[in-house]
Amino acid sequence: MRRFVSGRLRSLVVHSLQNKQQICPQQQQHSSPFLSRFLSSTPILDFASSMADKSSSPVTVGNINPKVVKCEYAVRGEIVILAGKIQDELKANPDSHPFDEILYCNIGNPQSLGQQPITYFREVLALCDHPSILDKSETQGLFSADSIERAWEILDQIPGRATGAYSHSQGIKGLRDTIAAGIEARDGYPADPNDIFLTDGASPAVHMMMTLLIRSEKDGIFCPIPQYPLYSASIALHGGTLVPYYLDEASGWGLEISELKKQLEDAKSKGVCVRALVVINPGNPTGQVLAEDNQRAIVEFCKQEGLVLLADEVYQENIYVPDKEFHSFKKVARSMGYGDKDIPLVSFQSVSKGYYGECGKRGGYMEVTGFSAEVREQIYKMASVNLCSNISGQILASLVMSPPKVGDESYELYLSEKDGILSSLKRRAKTLEEALNSLEGVTCNRAEGAMYLFPCINLPQKAIKAAEAEKTAPDAFYCKRLLNATGIVVVPGSGFGQVPGTWHFRCTILPQEDKIPAVVNHLTEFHKKFMDEFRD
Amino acid sequence: MRRFVSGRLRSLVVHSLQNKQQICPQQQQHSSPFLSRFLSSTPILDFASSMADKSSSPVTVGNINPKVVKCEYAVRGEIVILAGKIQDELKANPDSHPFDEILYCNIGNPQSLGQQPITYFREVLALCDHPSILDKSETQGLFSADSIERAWEILDQIPGRATGAYSHSQGIKGLRDTIAAGIEARDGYPADPNDIFLTDGASPAVHMMMTLLIRSEKDGIFCPIPQYPLYSASIALHGGTLVPYYLDEASGWGLEISELKKQLEDAKSKGVCVRALVVINPGNPTGQVLAEDNQRAIVEFCKQEGLVLLADEVYQENIYVPDKEFHSFKKVARSMGYGDKDIPLVSFQSVSKGYYGECGKRGGYMEVTGFSAEVREQIYKMASVNLCSNISGQILASLVMSPPKVGDESYELYLSEKDGILSSLKRRAKTLEEALNSLEGVTCNRAEGAMYLFPCINLPQKAIKAAEAEKTAPDAFYCKRLLNATGIVVVPGSGFGQVPGTWHFRCTILPQEDKIPAVVNHLTEFHKKFMDEFRD
Repeated sequence: MRRFVSGRLRSLVVHSLQNKQQICPQQQQHSSPFLSRFLSSTPILDFASSMADKSSSPVTVGNINPKVVKCEYAVRGEIVILAGKIQDELKANPDSHPFDEILYCNIGNPQSLGQQPITYFREVLALCDHPSILDKSETQGLFSADSIERAWEILDQIPGRATGAYSHSQGIKGLRDTIAAGIEARDGYPADPNDIFLTDGASPAVHMMMTLLIRSEKDGIFCPIPQYPLYSASIALHGGTLVPYYLDEASGWGLEISELKKQLEDAKSKGVCVRALVVINPGNPTGQVLAEDNQRAIVEFCKQEGLVLLADEVYQENIYVPDKEFHSFKKVARSMGYGDKDIPLVSFQSVSKGYYGECGKRGGYMEVTGFSAEVREQIYKMASVNLCSNISGQILASLVMSPPKVGDESYELYLSEKDGILSSLKRRAKTLEEALNSLEGVTCNRAEGAMYLFPCINLPQKAIKAAEAEKTAPDAFYCKRLLNATGIVVVPGSGFGQVPGTWHFRCTILPQEDKIPAVVNHLTEFHKKFMDEFRD
Repeated sequence: MRRFVSGRLRSLVVHSLQNKQQICPQQQQHSSPFLSRFLSSTPILDFASSMADKSSSPVTVGNINPKVVKCEYAVRGEIVILAGKIQDELKANPDSHPFDEILYCNIGNPQSLGQQPITYFREVLALCDHPSILDKSETQGLFSADSIERAWEILDQIPGRATGAYSHSQGIKGLRDTIAAGIEARDGYPADPNDIFLTDGASPAVHMMMTLLIRSEKDGIFCPIPQYPLYSASIALHGGTLVPYYLDEASGWGLEISELKKQLEDAKSKGVCVRALVVINPGNPTGQVLAEDNQRAIVEFCKQEGLVLLADEVYQENIYVPDKEFHSFKKVARSMGYGDKDIPLVSFQSVSKGYYGECGKRGGYMEVTGFSAEVREQIYKMASVNLCSNISGQILASLVMSPPKVGDESYELYLSEKDGILSSLKRRAKTLEEALNSLEGVTCNRAEGAMYLFPCINLPQKAIKAAEAEKTAPDAFYCKRLLNATGIVVVPGSGFGQVPGTWHFRCTILPQEDKIPAVVNHLTEFHKKFMDEFRD
């Protein structure tokens, strides 16, 4: 299959390396007639001054940072804004649309769709928020004994027991000890608490690494296509170049080293210096779980090519098939004999995913290994500018890496909540995948992990033309129609990148299980009508 | 007084506008002998390759983003790292230093020094973290009735009562309604919840505005000198130019419009386009509270010059003198007849300061007014890339803008806790100011607000020479000596900027009141010995 970079990505990949002249609002206001005449003779400045003309404001879309304008984030883009409007209309008039509610399948946000938090985690958080109830008798009746004990332990790890104080910029040392121990238990290889940087979710950690590595548009970051748009957005904001490598849909979103080599040569020939490789495992939006030998080949490729391996491992607990298992890239690298000095490797983890799904808590960490002390100091400095991540998120990150153990009072409840969520997600993934595969012209790889399905829709030419007439991408056209007909919100494939000429959407597997039959029915019915209308 | 830009700031102000050639680690590995010869002929690349030689890692200080290397953040800099080392030594051997403990006066982190959180705020947070206890009978015995009621109200404002879900990227709408109402009550002018962007503390909000406004090193941001180093760090990271305006120490850190005009002309003459003016009120590190007529003049200046007014108002509750009052810049602008369309104005607020001092919660917001809908959309997009700020921080931001009212069960306790903290801070500010002014060669403006004193130390030539011999700035030399002798951690003035040839340090007023006499004694004794050693 021949692959090309799609339009949106091309703008990231192929950059003009010239410095464009900038408009200064002040200079505009104070400019001489001669200067104005000179300014208006160039098209770029014409655009800027026409924007400025519309508003007396010194700040216009024409004179802000163009990297911001270029950045896109489809997960909360146009379709979601449309969904918000419809939701308001439904509130004002429940009969305004042919459905009762908006079902947000655009984003991995489990608790927004009714998933309940893990009781133990929330008990510990509440106790740490209000420690003065810890030694009151009523507390024993409200909280489990081990959550009370754990809260005391955590408070003892916090200098002065001050949960309201800024912590060390990498996070509270005692919590990092717990996380490092959790990583060791998971991988069977040592982890150093000084390598852990606690962050407000995984996103700021990704931004930090992009800030560190990207010097200019001549620096490239390898990203899978399709990819989670945090990466394209972050690379655009930091002024780098996204260098795509395509996952092979036909082999279940396989990652081939030959593709990496080809794209690396291509980038080099364009003068782009590729600095890092982003791997998302389990995949987002694609849901595949990498096989261990594939991971070894990726590690070897990064080692040989001098690339930083940025491993997005936030779905490490979300595996739904018996034939696949999660292996951290650090474990794989260590099993190959590569130690801390051999390969720069960053692993991102988040409290937003897994079976806990605590998105609103904004907790997460990155484990940073294989960098020199001098570079580590620079990463620490960046972390220190924002002082520290939120303490509740820090506590939660330590809890998910060290949950209740056999024998603890909370263990049975914890296990039943965890298994209930994971086994239900597994069933939902299967049901939705089968439903999608039963639709005319739709094929969908299984979700081996993560929280998404990314079906390919073979759109009829008639639909593509209708989309063109509406000046919309065909997949966005389909998704908007789906939203307007059913209230189901999904994200067009173009927001993640896809092989040009193919069309996809990303749909989460997160609607609660009792709603899945209705989702399947609405989707099936909509798709049938859509095909009846547009079939060639 | 003649004023010059000090060395550190000069590097931000005076930029080489050329594009420097970059080293690509890959290209290095794969480079031809010819290319290597060519590369080694330029000094910049020599530096980079010498860094690369030292380590086999593809990432070195020589080939990371130079903006990161340039960025400095003194509040958590060298002296604090030294303090951490001493703390470890004290732990291992309590007799290793002539003091028992490290007293961190380097950072506005009240709860780390023993300040207790406001009970009501923590009650509400705990209940929102673990809502399933809300309707249990034991809860009535542990929590105040109004905190239970408030938690219910907040949960009702959160879609699906899901405190673990990502929220709207600007923050939960109901909480923004509460904050807007709080701003209206404070200012007497309308506030729009759609103008509020909730953030993980004020720092990410400042970064967001810098990202928006800075296109290149030709864009300048006006900052007070001395300034809070978040601004210089953020401007450096985003690749802009810090344009300084000096506060006048002799008139209590006054902000003179003539100085702004002079510096603006100077920046323009260097080809710098000044886009925004940062004002910190109450001042950090300087502690002054601006008079209303001074604020009017600043608003008028921004209006005339087409500058965005970035108002750091995080210390709005920290006022300690009867002759000064806090006025928000929005209130001042509205009182001058400037409406939303007339002037772009951003106000930053944080839960870390005030009487609550909840630094670890990472809550805050910016109120963004006077931008076009198109530019607002770009700000929203940036916020959406990080999904949302943490929900506990969001809840707390709404609580500080809407605390208990007369008649509420918690009101008396709340008021006594608040007054206790603020009146104690006032006494501490006064005591420390007087103690500093009693030292030989030290003058210190009063802390009208905020949490800091910024004394000027007239260092003897002998001390300056001793510092030079140690390759240290004279103020850092003094601060290190102070730390080694007393365990008191303060930040050298050079981290904030100061008139060249003058020397200062920033000291918080946050040690608990019972420790203040000891602080004064240790400081006085140290200073006397220091002067005895170095007096000219």
